[in-house]
Amino acid sequence: MVSGLALVIRGQFGDNGSMPRTVAAASLAVLLGATWRTPAGGTSRSAALADALRGLVVDGRVAPGTRLPSERDLAAELGVSRGSVSRAFQRLEEAGYLIARRGAGSTVTLPAGARPAEPPGPAREGELDLSVAALPAPDPLLAEAAARAVTALARHLPGLGYAPAGLPELREALAARMTARGLPTTADEVLVTAGAQHGLRLVIDLLVGPGDRVLVDAPGYPRTLAAIRAARGRPVPVPLGERSWDADGWAGAARVAAPRLAVTVPDFQHPTGIVMRAADREAIALTCARAGTVLVSDEACVELRLDGPALPPPLGAYDPGGTVVTVGSMSKAAWGGVRIGWVRATARVIRELTTVRGAIDMAGPVLDQLVGVELSHNWDAVIASRRTLLHERRSALFTALAEHAPAWTVRRPHGGTSAGARLPTPDATRLAAAAASTGLLLSPGPAFSVDGTFEHHIRLPYTLPPETLHDAVARLAQLARELGTETRATSPSSGDAAAAVI
Amino acid sequence: MVSGLALVIRGQFGDNGSMPRTVAAASLAVLLGATWRTPAGGTSRSAALADALRGLVVDGRVAPGTRLPSERDLAAELGVSRGSVSRAFQRLEEAGYLIARRGAGSTVTLPAGARPAEPPGPAREGELDLSVAALPAPDPLLAEAAARAVTALARHLPGLGYAPAGLPELREALAARMTARGLPTTADEVLVTAGAQHGLRLVIDLLVGPGDRVLVDAPGYPRTLAAIRAARGRPVPVPLGERSWDADGWAGAARVAAPRLAVTVPDFQHPTGIVMRAADREAIALTCARAGTVLVSDEACVELRLDGPALPPPLGAYDPGGTVVTVGSMSKAAWGGVRIGWVRATARVIRELTTVRGAIDMAGPVLDQLVGVELSHNWDAVIASRRTLLHERRSALFTALAEHAPAWTVRRPHGGTSAGARLPTPDATRLAAAAASTGLLLSPGPAFSVDGTFEHHIRLPYTLPPETLHDAVARLAQLARELGTETRATSPSSGDAAAAVI
Repeated sequence: MVSGLALVIRGQFGDNGSMPRTVAAASLAVLLGATWRTPAGGTSRSAALADALRGLVVDGRVAPGTRLPSERDLAAELGVSRGSVSRAFQRLEEAGYLIARRGAGSTVTLPAGARPAEPPGPAREGELDLSVAALPAPDPLLAEAAARAVTALARHLPGLGYAPAGLPELREALAARMTARGLPTTADEVLVTAGAQHGLRLVIDLLVGPGDRVLVDAPGYPRTLAAIRAARGRPVPVPLGERSWDADGWAGAARVAAPRLAVTVPDFQHPTGIVMRAADREAIALTCARAGTVLVSDEACVELRLDGPALPPPLGAYDPGGTVVTVGSMSKAAWGGVRIGWVRATARVIRELTTVRGAIDMAGPVLDQLVGVELSHNWDAVIASRRTLLHERRSALFTALAEHAPAWTVRRPHGGTSAGARLPTPDATRLAAAAASTGLLLSPGPAFSVDGTFEHHIRLPYTLPPETLHDAVARLAQLARELGTETRATSPSSGDAAAAVI
Repeated sequence: MVSGLALVIRGQFGDNGSMPRTVAAASLAVLLGATWRTPAGGTSRSAALADALRGLVVDGRVAPGTRLPSERDLAAELGVSRGSVSRAFQRLEEAGYLIARRGAGSTVTLPAGARPAEPPGPAREGELDLSVAALPAPDPLLAEAAARAVTALARHLPGLGYAPAGLPELREALAARMTARGLPTTADEVLVTAGAQHGLRLVIDLLVGPGDRVLVDAPGYPRTLAAIRAARGRPVPVPLGERSWDADGWAGAARVAAPRLAVTVPDFQHPTGIVMRAADREAIALTCARAGTVLVSDEACVELRLDGPALPPPLGAYDPGGTVVTVGSMSKAAWGGVRIGWVRATARVIRELTTVRGAIDMAGPVLDQLVGVELSHNWDAVIASRRTLLHERRSALFTALAEHAPAWTVRRPHGGTSAGARLPTPDATRLAAAAASTGLLLSPGPAFSVDGTFEHHIRLPYTLPPETLHDAVARLAQLARELGTETRATSPSSGDAAAAVI
């Protein structure tokens, strides 16, 4: 194989007349938002447009392999000159984000050295990565679990190594843990997956086809949107309320969209950190049951409570019957390098998901599952070690914010791994681009939206060491001041701003 | 969550008017073939039809969650009475393979205790499983690799554990191995996956959309078909020749189908065991390059050569540029419980596949990858241990076949893990059903086809211990005699039948 991708691209993009992956000019205009129209001093309109397009690619909102609209169509849609669009495309091509082919339009790609959306690899030398919300492994608990797992492995080596639904002992352990958390579960109601994302993807592959609507939190987890789009479903955003979910909004969306599936993160929602009230759990589960909508509850962070009131019972506990499917993970609560998650559903659905898995990755690794078993034996200690770290780092983040970014509105979450910050001006994408150019990576609000909204917001994980977090916030606040985001306020800050920033 | 699946099914199947997964009566008729029309003595037509339908579900040719055509439509298509179809559906419902809902048709599912298509879990007590072609772990090499991996893990624990494209040291090791096999490869041209199937699925997710055509070997690996169908692509079978591939057939199919993708297993093809000749490699790679078709070469068994002539250079070595993507795996060559595979493509495609992975399972487990690194350090010994086992077991299989099933045509493959056997009569599905009822599991030929053909064929893995293989063949041959497959020959056996059965 030589260097060229020419034939791959040709195969991919419709020389044969079949359906290419495209983004229409109107959709792209929505995703682009309006920030690029008022570039910072010294930046041309076409450079700002190129930056905005690059932001969409880097955030995963426009997938590699997508064909862009023609320069002419996009210019007409945006109401700018074709020359501006043409110069923007040329910039992107030079930077390695576009492949232009005469007569076949421009296709989005990733240049050498580009980092896909979270989670990328380990931070590079000199990089400060606020785009990942992940902790180092619990020491020495993980190393000990791995050592015990190797001992337990001996018993499995004479077998064939395939357990598509998961090792029985791990299914038992996960079921027991869910039962203890208030969600009575048997082992045959558990499928072991390679993480919560993998579990969600299996459910989507089982239930969602082209054009099917899926309700999602707005803002919500970017990879949820990516998984829905991979199945060619249509995510339908339901805006979150200020302190919980908007149950009436859910009822209305379910009525209008007739969704096949809905996905929510009820405990320390990502990226806002809020918790769904018990009454909203009950109402939303009932709404979905009535609409015939399967409701996926993503519990990746449920065990990372740090303070505040006790959590309501799991969303699955409000299930009137066969509506709620729960996904969870050790990869967030223990360590990202252990790829163990689960789906909890009826035994019948678990069997169907196991078959779906056969067309994806067949089965999970035995050794990693044995690590999961060993971790589960010591789970309280694992969680305690995570909480200690997160407590300390959350404090560091909020101390730094109070010192360096007093104008930002940030509510201190009671658990999970990150907080959402509201900037005084809708400049999140611009701030993220400026930060990236200095080696500071950041997820801007639009990365968490279906439609490019949330430009006032950035996500701030508190997973880096305290001194690193302090440094990152100081640099970010300085960049924001340079961009003028502190002085061009376009919307009033919310009522509880002062109280929220501690 | 209580027991019912009612709401899941309602959500899944179009109460809301969106697109359900269905199989049309005409397609189902093709999949069913004709064998059920001439049931063995004492079996009713409707029972035979029910058995044939169950075979399609168990083989994964009709996926769980698929809605069947109405009884009336299917009866008309098959030219039988509606009562026959109705009784067949009722049998399936009683056996737990169908869920019938008034007004919403019948939906395929899996009953408690059903085994999805290969690989299922470990064989149950008393079961003899010829449906899986997998070996126990190489002893003590795997245990030693796991122990060393735990030591190597310590260095990774302070990190976040995410390496979406794979641990650098494993990418290096895999690239070095491919280079040594005649396929010069750099680490950035390698994506570490959870097995060859996972790698293939990533390529399909990147390139194949609804309705896109994908050329496949006929017969071919069932999970390849499942992965194509999961992306709603259309597999286009290209019949294999007697001893190699039909390069002219490929050229014709590429012209007519204008496929986006093609998938083949050039080395010890699954299930036939044949090897693609060098001239055919060159011709097929060129055909795909000219058609703008990406050609996936699945090399899961390439290192399991037992005897015969040296293999031609890898298919990727014939790539005129950017056409061939190679997938491979340690899971077949080392142990199924180690889920390590890879994709080899241009660095740019690898970056795009890494992004696709983000919507599936994000990254692989660190410890399992370290086991892969350790195995790669000792790879020649691992492969040697596999070859020793496979040599011995292949001999046992062919000795048993010569003794018990002299009328079957079986060519001794020069490598891989299984042989294809041709029965004197087209009764593979019936034989598999009869065997299953005695606890002997078997993959009939139609499981390897797009259209229910290959009823003359069964796959015989030589991965079980010699005495077990002998027992299995003896029981299978006895069942075949009871079904009359030895005495109702309907087609002449091929010219080299005698030579082929050793």
